[in-house]
Amino acid sequence: MTVAQEVEAANAQYAASFTKGNLALPPQRKVAIVACMDARLDTARALGLEEGDAHVIRNAGGRVTDALRSIVISQQLLGTREIIIVHHTDCGMLTFTDEVIRGKVRAELGQNVDHIAFLPFGDLKQSVLDDIKILKESPLVLDVPVTGYVYEVETGKIVKVE
Amino acid sequence: MTVAQEVEAANAQYAASFTKGNLALPPQRKVAIVACMDARLDTARALGLEEGDAHVIRNAGGRVTDALRSIVISQQLLGTREIIIVHHTDCGMLTFTDEVIRGKVRAELGQNVDHIAFLPFGDLKQSVLDDIKILKESPLVLDVPVTGYVYEVETGKIVKVE
Repeated sequence: MTVAQEVEAANAQYAASFTKGNLALPPQRKVAIVACMDARLDTARALGLEEGDAHVIRNAGGRVTDALRSIVISQQLLGTREIIIVHHTDCGMLTFTDEVIRGKVRAELGQNVDHIAFLPFGDLKQSVLDDIKILKESPLVLDVPVTGYVYEVETGKIVKVE
Repeated sequence: MTVAQEVEAANAQYAASFTKGNLALPPQRKVAIVACMDARLDTARALGLEEGDAHVIRNAGGRVTDALRSIVISQQLLGTREIIIVHHTDCGMLTFTDEVIRGKVRAELGQNVDHIAFLPFGDLKQSVLDDIKILKESPLVLDVPVTGYVYEVETGKIVKVE
């Protein structure tokens, strides 16, 4: 059984009691979240988001450089006016370097991925500060409130980085 | 009051009853979800995912081209062996073209973004089929089960695309 089949069964239950079919396309709380793809982080539950509230952009590390296309669409076409960044403790991005993963892809898949910046980091807090700075300085991003957090996978808490 | 302040208050409640501090880094169900950032889609609730289950990669449209860095990390370093794609009805990506958003960014921000492919689409079902094909043909992606769905924001249901 694939996870897809399990997901179909779970979705049938969700849809059976679904009552939110009239929500508007633009996020009601006018915010875009940029968070890591990590399995332990449930952005909706951990941040108190309901369906319709917020754009949720997620990638390996929650890196903003890899979220720029989505942020521009979010702000220019769908009216979001705040950004929240969430990185987290015990992140996989702390465990490798571009050199390591490029070597692994070359060995496992026979492919050269020297053209991909995988965006790992060595310092968690600094990775949040770096991403805030990138957004603040990008000419493609509006001058909106940007707040960065470290989510603690051990405690469920977010800790503001400043 | 910023949304960030509201999120901090909501998170304090979440953390107060948090019991999942011992989850492993690799996703337990060995799956990566690639979904749209749309505010109306709560991937965890709609797909039956608990903390620790799945990587969740989200971007404007849920496009796999923009998720490749994360997918390679997910498969090569964190052991996921299945991919689920979720696009959805009433998607913002159906409402514009590269020409439109590039013009808007030039007008609003005075910036040339002709180098960014914003990945809009005109046919929802085809966008899912295209993304499945891209993954199936990419030499950077393992030969794993890939299933694509359209999430109906009107009903809460996912409909398999094949």
